[in-house]
Amino acid sequence: MSSITLHPAAQDLLFREARTAHTFTSEPVTEEQVQAIYDLVKYAPTAYNQSPLRIALVRSAEARERLAQHMDEGNRPKISAAPLVAILAADNEFHEELPALLPHFPQAKDVVFADRPVREESALLNATLQAAYFILGVRAAGLAAGPMTGFDFPGVQKEFLDDDHTPLMVVNIGRPGAAAWHARSPRLAYDEVVTTV
Amino acid sequence: MSSITLHPAAQDLLFREARTAHTFTSEPVTEEQVQAIYDLVKYAPTAYNQSPLRIALVRSAEARERLAQHMDEGNRPKISAAPLVAILAADNEFHEELPALLPHFPQAKDVVFADRPVREESALLNATLQAAYFILGVRAAGLAAGPMTGFDFPGVQKEFLDDDHTPLMVVNIGRPGAAAWHARSPRLAYDEVVTTV
Repeated sequence: MSSITLHPAAQDLLFREARTAHTFTSEPVTEEQVQAIYDLVKYAPTAYNQSPLRIALVRSAEARERLAQHMDEGNRPKISAAPLVAILAADNEFHEELPALLPHFPQAKDVVFADRPVREESALLNATLQAAYFILGVRAAGLAAGPMTGFDFPGVQKEFLDDDHTPLMVVNIGRPGAAAWHARSPRLAYDEVVTTV
Repeated sequence: MSSITLHPAAQDLLFREARTAHTFTSEPVTEEQVQAIYDLVKYAPTAYNQSPLRIALVRSAEARERLAQHMDEGNRPKISAAPLVAILAADNEFHEELPALLPHFPQAKDVVFADRPVREESALLNATLQAAYFILGVRAAGLAAGPMTGFDFPGVQKEFLDDDHTPLMVVNIGRPGAAAWHARSPRLAYDEVVTTV
């Protein structure tokens, strides 16, 4: 019997056959699709349920052009061609929502997260976990994600966010187009990654 | 038509019904199960396919006891009761494997990742993404994960890792036991998380 409960078709959709896309068709990604993705991935776990991920959808041609100017040169054509581009960021002031998010320990806002450096470290870790959930959520919607970290982070923060929001990555979203990906690169063997103590 | 392609049972297994477990049954988690989880989640994306996540399985009673001593007091009983405990860490020397992992750009090792601070930042981001994939992979195996960041990070690093490996989190793994979780806490509404520019 397989050790994996998840249906093989779902394993393929999320992990085995899904790939980082570099080209996309022109089919739009609707607000309804993004909402469905969020309504799924919002349940995946974060520490203290702090849920620090924030998402800015770049939809207007004007905003798209401004974002492209902050991307590394090799990423600009992808930004221009993707049906939807999302800036994923960590909210360093997530503690303001904690009393609502953590009703059994509302004082966590002041007891655990009073200090900004503590919040920044925790927001970075937990928003990054949520970025991974989001990438898999995009795949769960039958779409391809193209996450990118090759851009001017302070530039994107200044242009689209504020001092309380730290950019993590930019994600192209859509249906894969022609020659959407390279051949699959190798992965590390189990024994290179997992040890027992 | 639903915007989500993933089968509803798979949505429940990974996101909607899955929960962070605080108690576990005594049913062991086998090496075969961990290998199956790894063989699935290894395909999820990282920048430059750098794959910096490393996993130390804490199996012996002696190692379990040593780990418990570095955990925050509230996490110690979980560490003792979980069938399997895994320390997830980022390999800051991941670039050594890049020529094998990225055959179409083997020089990335020296061109992009020659400097340790650049590697540390990239390893933290990408190993954290992989930690999220791993949590969902544990759920895909029909098991519950209990990720924890409440521990003495330098202590765990010194005791179980080395200067090149930064701990990210400790994860309890097993089948959920009695009263395994609190009531589900609220999540942020879509409009609190997603904006359009």
